[in-house]
Amino acid sequence: MSRIILTGIKPTGMPHLGNYIGAIQPALELTKDSSVTSYLFVADYHSLTTVHDAEALSRMIHQVSAAWLACGLDPKKTIMYRQSDIPELFELNWILSCMTPKGLMNRGHSYKALIQANREAGRRNTESGINMGIYNYPVLMSADILLFSTDEVPVSEDQEQHLEITRDIAVKFNHTFNTDILKPPKTLVKTKLLPGLDGEKMSKSKGNHIPLFCSSKELKKIIMKIKTDSSSPSEPKDPEKSILFSIYKAFGSTEQTKALADKYRRGIGWGEVKEFLYLLLEEHLSEKRKVYESLMNNPNTVNSILKEGAKKAREKAQTLMSQIRKTIGIDSL
Amino acid sequence: MSRIILTGIKPTGMPHLGNYIGAIQPALELTKDSSVTSYLFVADYHSLTTVHDAEALSRMIHQVSAAWLACGLDPKKTIMYRQSDIPELFELNWILSCMTPKGLMNRGHSYKALIQANREAGRRNTESGINMGIYNYPVLMSADILLFSTDEVPVSEDQEQHLEITRDIAVKFNHTFNTDILKPPKTLVKTKLLPGLDGEKMSKSKGNHIPLFCSSKELKKIIMKIKTDSSSPSEPKDPEKSILFSIYKAFGSTEQTKALADKYRRGIGWGEVKEFLYLLLEEHLSEKRKVYESLMNNPNTVNSILKEGAKKAREKAQTLMSQIRKTIGIDSL
Repeated sequence: MSRIILTGIKPTGMPHLGNYIGAIQPALELTKDSSVTSYLFVADYHSLTTVHDAEALSRMIHQVSAAWLACGLDPKKTIMYRQSDIPELFELNWILSCMTPKGLMNRGHSYKALIQANREAGRRNTESGINMGIYNYPVLMSADILLFSTDEVPVSEDQEQHLEITRDIAVKFNHTFNTDILKPPKTLVKTKLLPGLDGEKMSKSKGNHIPLFCSSKELKKIIMKIKTDSSSPSEPKDPEKSILFSIYKAFGSTEQTKALADKYRRGIGWGEVKEFLYLLLEEHLSEKRKVYESLMNNPNTVNSILKEGAKKAREKAQTLMSQIRKTIGIDSL
Repeated sequence: MSRIILTGIKPTGMPHLGNYIGAIQPALELTKDSSVTSYLFVADYHSLTTVHDAEALSRMIHQVSAAWLACGLDPKKTIMYRQSDIPELFELNWILSCMTPKGLMNRGHSYKALIQANREAGRRNTESGINMGIYNYPVLMSADILLFSTDEVPVSEDQEQHLEITRDIAVKFNHTFNTDILKPPKTLVKTKLLPGLDGEKMSKSKGNHIPLFCSSKELKKIIMKIKTDSSSPSEPKDPEKSILFSIYKAFGSTEQTKALADKYRRGIGWGEVKEFLYLLLEEHLSEKRKVYESLMNNPNTVNSILKEGAKKAREKAQTLMSQIRKTIGIDSL
């Protein structure tokens, strides 16, 4: 029996190196396992909760799709599709919402964080700026997962609650209709983290990120901004305390990493380390960058891949949806 | 330019005489106006907010569809469909939820009534028993209306808030994307009310209703239960104070009504009035009842009509949806 693994990617534009190490690479690694059936979807309708600009949304969808493909996603091995191309998801979203106690949504982390932010900003209306898409988000995410009878979903630790909610909703549905057609998914916690320019977890919202694809010149410029200490070149350095080293290690082979660690211990200038990191990243990314640029210039290539994936995904989706409709009484008379 | 009028019917089973006089008859009357394009949909997915029993839901959908057809709905003049056959509705539901401030839903009458009921029952959790379908209901209803560029929606006074919410959401969408593709609908207030057995507004939840279709014997039995006073047959009676007369008037011709009013003023026994009402209802309903029974015995006839209607409705729906998708940036790259 093959394991079904589903990954959702929110199109927030160009991924950064943290996304690559934490999400893209591990997901692509999983697809090498022949016992895995892998789905990857661009969660464009999740972005609509916050992005209300057609051009920006379309560009971000294009960027994120092109980036994954450039990193080596093989559409023959992974069913890659846009969420918006699977109408069954939105029907299931409604069905599941009828099974979801409102109290469950009140406990959602993202919702609560926004309430908290409003409170801290001294706003009288603590729900200010919160639309129903944001509030309903965990239900649509449950539909994303349950529609494909997903076994495992790779998520970072802070998203684990979404999986708990998905399991709760699946169990509630199954119990209500005395069935087992919805499969409660397991969590596959993503463990690989990358520090950003300042040593904090790399994140676009913190502005401490390195884009996955930019010109060599820009990459060099950004690497120059990575925080170091004021020790002189000749001083021995502890690699484990260095942001530069952490990033280098994430990309380098065991030999490359060991060699650099030795240099740290003997004493090396930060400028030289930055040059090593730059060369290593160039080695890893320059070919991919060319593919990315070509895909950005050929939207139709990306379109075709996504449409082809959607066709395959819908076939699976329709089989389960037709069972679900029978189960709830929405069927031919 | 034709006016688009859309009517939604929640399948709660067999309609009662109050539904017939207040909703079915006026809606069918409207379809006679050649300047009207009329849509009528069975809101099966709205029922899922409360009905979690496949057999019951399916039966209620069948009953309500058969009842409208038996009352004379002409599928050539009215596009009649099941909500669940229009996947675009659920996609639009999501899109609109991303435009709907959460605060707007907090003000929903039905939601507030449930909170109030929990409070009165002394429940600590005032959201007890409220699922997300109930809470989201006004958004899906907005999608129902906006997807067909509806001009007017017949609603009873207590549902007028839903139309206000729909207008708010349409305006918000149009403003956000600098467009006018969503048409804010007008309210067409339904004014015809029928009293129930006890003189209160006829309603299934109050248990004071007369089913639209039941056996002659049962109809007679139910009419016998209509409340009267203790005046003797020979006493003159005020027709305007009589429940029996109100129901009679709703079905009788001007002549028939005038004749009965005269009898009231001269003095008439309640048993005799009940017999008159029974005969009048039989005159109005016996043929329709036969059609209803035949449609209940032939689910496939009803299925075909609904499927045919869904085909026509989807054609319209897809045209607007494709514009909406372009507008928000969910389109081919």
